[in-house]
Amino acid sequence: MDKSAILHIPLSKYAFANTEKEMTIRLRAKKKDLTSCILYYADRACNHTPIDFTSIPMKVIAEDEMFEYYEATFETPYVRVCYYFELWQNDKWTYYYADQFTNKLADIKVNNSVIEGRSEYYQYPYILREEVVDVPEWFKNAVVYNIFPDSFASDERILLCETPEIEIDGKKHKRRLGGTIKGIMSNLDYIKELGFDCIYLNPIFSAGEYHKYDILDYYHIDPCLGTDEEFRELVNEIHNRDMHIIIDGVFNHCSWEFFAFEDVVCNGLNSKYKDWFYELKYPVIKPDNSTDTPNYACFAYERKMPKLNTSNKEVQEYFEKVCRYWIREFKIDGWRLDVANEIDRNFWRGFRKAAKEEDPNIVLIGEVWENSETWLRGDAFDSTMNYDFRKHCRDYFALNIEDAITFSWNINQMRLRYPTNISDSQLNLLDSHDVPRFLSLCKDDVDKWKLAFIFLMLAPGVPSMFYGDEKGISGITENEYRSPMVWEESNTTMKQFVKKIISIRKEYVDYRSNYEQYVSENNSQLFTFARSNQKLKILIYMNVSNEKVKVELPSDEMLILGERIENGGIQSWGYCIYLMETGTILA
Amino acid sequence: MDKSAILHIPLSKYAFANTEKEMTIRLRAKKKDLTSCILYYADRACNHTPIDFTSIPMKVIAEDEMFEYYEATFETPYVRVCYYFELWQNDKWTYYYADQFTNKLADIKVNNSVIEGRSEYYQYPYILREEVVDVPEWFKNAVVYNIFPDSFASDERILLCETPEIEIDGKKHKRRLGGTIKGIMSNLDYIKELGFDCIYLNPIFSAGEYHKYDILDYYHIDPCLGTDEEFRELVNEIHNRDMHIIIDGVFNHCSWEFFAFEDVVCNGLNSKYKDWFYELKYPVIKPDNSTDTPNYACFAYERKMPKLNTSNKEVQEYFEKVCRYWIREFKIDGWRLDVANEIDRNFWRGFRKAAKEEDPNIVLIGEVWENSETWLRGDAFDSTMNYDFRKHCRDYFALNIEDAITFSWNINQMRLRYPTNISDSQLNLLDSHDVPRFLSLCKDDVDKWKLAFIFLMLAPGVPSMFYGDEKGISGITENEYRSPMVWEESNTTMKQFVKKIISIRKEYVDYRSNYEQYVSENNSQLFTFARSNQKLKILIYMNVSNEKVKVELPSDEMLILGERIENGGIQSWGYCIYLMETGTILA
Repeated sequence: MDKSAILHIPLSKYAFANTEKEMTIRLRAKKKDLTSCILYYADRACNHTPIDFTSIPMKVIAEDEMFEYYEATFETPYVRVCYYFELWQNDKWTYYYADQFTNKLADIKVNNSVIEGRSEYYQYPYILREEVVDVPEWFKNAVVYNIFPDSFASDERILLCETPEIEIDGKKHKRRLGGTIKGIMSNLDYIKELGFDCIYLNPIFSAGEYHKYDILDYYHIDPCLGTDEEFRELVNEIHNRDMHIIIDGVFNHCSWEFFAFEDVVCNGLNSKYKDWFYELKYPVIKPDNSTDTPNYACFAYERKMPKLNTSNKEVQEYFEKVCRYWIREFKIDGWRLDVANEIDRNFWRGFRKAAKEEDPNIVLIGEVWENSETWLRGDAFDSTMNYDFRKHCRDYFALNIEDAITFSWNINQMRLRYPTNISDSQLNLLDSHDVPRFLSLCKDDVDKWKLAFIFLMLAPGVPSMFYGDEKGISGITENEYRSPMVWEESNTTMKQFVKKIISIRKEYVDYRSNYEQYVSENNSQLFTFARSNQKLKILIYMNVSNEKVKVELPSDEMLILGERIENGGIQSWGYCIYLMETGTILA
Repeated sequence: MDKSAILHIPLSKYAFANTEKEMTIRLRAKKKDLTSCILYYADRACNHTPIDFTSIPMKVIAEDEMFEYYEATFETPYVRVCYYFELWQNDKWTYYYADQFTNKLADIKVNNSVIEGRSEYYQYPYILREEVVDVPEWFKNAVVYNIFPDSFASDERILLCETPEIEIDGKKHKRRLGGTIKGIMSNLDYIKELGFDCIYLNPIFSAGEYHKYDILDYYHIDPCLGTDEEFRELVNEIHNRDMHIIIDGVFNHCSWEFFAFEDVVCNGLNSKYKDWFYELKYPVIKPDNSTDTPNYACFAYERKMPKLNTSNKEVQEYFEKVCRYWIREFKIDGWRLDVANEIDRNFWRGFRKAAKEEDPNIVLIGEVWENSETWLRGDAFDSTMNYDFRKHCRDYFALNIEDAITFSWNINQMRLRYPTNISDSQLNLLDSHDVPRFLSLCKDDVDKWKLAFIFLMLAPGVPSMFYGDEKGISGITENEYRSPMVWEESNTTMKQFVKKIISIRKEYVDYRSNYEQYVSENNSQLFTFARSNQKLKILIYMNVSNEKVKVELPSDEMLILGERIENGGIQSWGYCIYLMETGTILA
């Protein structure tokens, strides 16, 4: 038995409550090493000794390159649980608890007295109602359209940028392409018709730069984009279409022309905002050149974006009010939170509390590119932007530097890094305003892009598509990938494809759908996955290679999208999507 | 290379900030598997691409049965850090980041553009000033005497229990042995003379049972124990002696005669306290028999101790006031928090905030018997009661079912399960009011007990001794281990020993002292450890076996306690403590 590969971490993705009555316990082992793994659990508060353990066999639910993952999900009659594992390799066995391998249970005998050892097992101390982590139901089933406002539409469908900046009260507001709130409003039906039911807008508050990440006024819409009233109308129009809206909250930093920073520059140590910023040195000086090092902390080293001291109670209260204002007054449905991992957790706890008090269905999505487990423990965000999803899709579908098996392993690892409720609510994406268009990573090969898009839409998680992907917008550099939205309808292939795939998702998949993936070493170009509920299953075959692949496919009657080649198999970069009754036995 | 044994977890005990400028990064590997491990770190916000990494070799700082632990502690010029590992096994190597082994760094080239991958390395997003976890300095150097008040002293030195209960306003307050606050006060010099500088009292608030864990009134001292004024005087007297006092906070549950619970029993759904308790069913009925199942949640299944709904804001505010009251009005120095792991984290966050606002030097110690990593992240407790310390000492010194090597591995595992600041602040103990006396586990063999006591006092962590251990109190059952304090001075061997060891600790060891342990397979009875600062080192040899052991020892001139046998070596269950200059080369 390879004990050094065994991993279990209490109160983590390896042991969590799905509801007040249901727990999941996982254990990692080396692949093909154990012959079985049994979970024993008991009431840790049981009032007799020895306590009675219940045993359940654990099942391998996933594997990656080195490991397999055992899992047991069970209704627990207890809220206070202690547990241990019994690991078997043929006729050899060991117990495993308290991170130790042993052949004895924890009770010990001293001078003929049994000394109780129940506290020495792994513990799930109490399934507290308020600590069961879950995410608003609507979001788990959302399909998100991400708009970068400046780039989308200023008139009904056309971008018109008359002047590159507006000056109001001595402050400049830049624009690049001239997109507006009204432009978005005029195109809600377009978005809705594609199948999207949630719009995520990059920042819209009053700011200096065209991207609006340097905020001047957290209480108003940027004048380049429109008015507060127009935004109110936009939200109403979105809600009238049974859609949701998520806006971008930038609280790590502000503009150097934000009133509080200007006060600090002006009044130095006498400013009542001197504790609103991080690492100020006096006098606070705005550097003339972008290459000068500012004497205050910034977002990156950007002198125009001073870092807020988010552990200051006044700053927390200020932004909690901002949070409440847009929820209460404008009825937004969620916040995407910029640079979320550089802000202290206490800020987010207060922010979350404010948001959920205003509306328990508000969704909070942190911008955390890496494994964001520490922000997804129920006290900060409901979800994070899943850039790892993009990375795996990039390496597999676009760059094709990984094979199907490695991809399947990466997806398993990705899914198992959080508790189930959380993994199912990740904001999956192929691109965003911060990265090259996925189509460019595919070297403009639409077929490759399509496979990735199928996976985006049908894999577990909440899919988010960046505006214009459906029109084949490409781009490696910032200006390119924030290109103007394409409104011409000269070639609608991609758009029709997007619409079709979303319709399949909406008809056959929801967050509860079971996910399975199949790969084979004999057919390493082929990636197959399925989503199913108790009745129906969709089964997706994708040939992620430059060669056609022969494979036995289900009957043509079940084919709902894609095409097989004559005599069975799938063309290079082709796919086949089948619909069948769950439990259908394939030849 | 055994990749399946490699472990690194970002933002955990494997990657933490010691100060705003100093970080520690760790990596676990199979023992003797790697030939070297190099850490590369960079400024994740660096404004040029590719970013410049700094490399430092990592050192093996500890091992256990299967693993060795690489560590690098370094001053970081950056507050935003990304990092990766380069693992070597002879001439084979791999990078390790994002939980993946790879031979390429994260930047990739697409269409001749380099696409930046810095976000794909491991990330330490921002060393935020307010999030660096540390513990009040006084506590890290404290030596704690734990008193179970009912059992200690009621008159100057004698326990006098006249009546088994007192009735006030219709509520009964039980006592068993009759210990009082005054009794403790009369014996402060005794405790101080032994060398202890901190007293931790089990509960003293007004309560029903003799143990005082079923609280009736959080604002008053129990009448069996004395008066509020006597307690105030006790705290003053403790402070006058440059000592500290920690009291027991029981907030998971209260007495069923606590006013709020009585209101709920009386008024049911109309009670304004109906949300103060957990899982109430109406009408709320106090069961007649202790075997009846109550229709409300309890501590364990104890009908007389209803569980408080600590996620209710009113309950939180009530106990935050209690917290502040005893700090502000009575100047206590810390809270030991009962059943801490069954209370929601949000309660503790508020409680911590209240406590630290009143006095930043307050220390908060949770009762969490198991690995308590999730409560030691800076938002809840400073320390937890380290029952694992006891378990390892029990199995090694008392039951002797483990050898020196296994013990050393267990101690390493124990120390490495938290960041350094936290590990150094664990409340180590051999026994408490909740477990058999350690001396009884030793079958009353004082020599065994002495070795464990040496380790308790000289190992890293904050040692806590239960009252009367210094007088040889033994006991397996609750009444036994809560026996009356022994005040006769007929045999003072153990007391003198306790005093001597504490004096060695106070003279030569503080929390900054380096800790090393030495074990050898050739001499598996012998456990040797050292504590050292830049000048002095104490070196402790312990023969944890029934046979004398031959071993080459330092020169007799350096011996400060214990005795060697003729011709070198240590007697069965003997010890030798040496003092030398750090760097002294032993033969």
